[in-house]
Amino acid sequence: MTETSSRPDNAAQLRALIERWAQAVRSKDVHGVLAHAAADIVTFDLAPPLASTGPDAGGLQAWFSTWQGPLGYEIHDLRITAGGDVAFCHFLTRLSGTKIDGQKNDVWFRQTLCLLRVGGQWRIAHQHESVPFYMDGSYRAAVDLEP
Amino acid sequence: MTETSSRPDNAAQLRALIERWAQAVRSKDVHGVLAHAAADIVTFDLAPPLASTGPDAGGLQAWFSTWQGPLGYEIHDLRITAGGDVAFCHFLTRLSGTKIDGQKNDVWFRQTLCLLRVGGQWRIAHQHESVPFYMDGSYRAAVDLEP
Repeated sequence: MTETSSRPDNAAQLRALIERWAQAVRSKDVHGVLAHAAADIVTFDLAPPLASTGPDAGGLQAWFSTWQGPLGYEIHDLRITAGGDVAFCHFLTRLSGTKIDGQKNDVWFRQTLCLLRVGGQWRIAHQHESVPFYMDGSYRAAVDLEP
Repeated sequence: MTETSSRPDNAAQLRALIERWAQAVRSKDVHGVLAHAAADIVTFDLAPPLASTGPDAGGLQAWFSTWQGPLGYEIHDLRITAGGDVAFCHFLTRLSGTKIDGQKNDVWFRQTLCLLRVGGQWRIAHQHESVPFYMDGSYRAAVDLEP
């Protein structure tokens, strides 16, 4: 993990927030995942649409319910940059688990989290998750990449 | 455009930077595009790999050379959040143009730019560009979406 920050306390707070958030994803805890989201969070998700605004507890619950048991959710190459009240983090996520139909999944994707501190609390104001796609004319999402 | 900032001057600087940067893309000016990039910029690009570090002038020149004439590069729903020395921006981009082989392209994608001010100059420390993909089993990149 690399931290670029003139405010080391903020970077430590953000590292802890991301660890709690990732742990909530692993245990499919909708409330825990959304606990750090701003009310007007703008999300660029893995799935369409292009963008959405506001926490989507129903959508997250529906997605969690497509998986058996807990999720693998490893965070790699985390980099945190924190100012006084504005911060951004980016990392690679390895998501793994077994779908309800028995299909095993293991995919790496990219994540950017942008945060704002309001009333002393860091809130995720923007989340961007993606995989790239192959520019060979196939337009296939590159869900088979590893770092 | 929405600006969430306790530092209005910073938001204005960033808005101007993004406009210069977009204009450089439109005119396929490699130097202009990379003028605002940090030396250790971490890029999550539309195309593989998952991540790369450092400005890639050669890759950008090669990509520009696949297009005839200037590019359409509209920025929509820009939102700028600026602290003292850390900022993030997200927006939707409409990229259009004609490839060397005559194929016309017109695609919307998502962008997040994360910036750091060093020595009084804002630098793009992280850039994340993507389209979502269809979760219908096809794994097709969703290059046909509109906001």
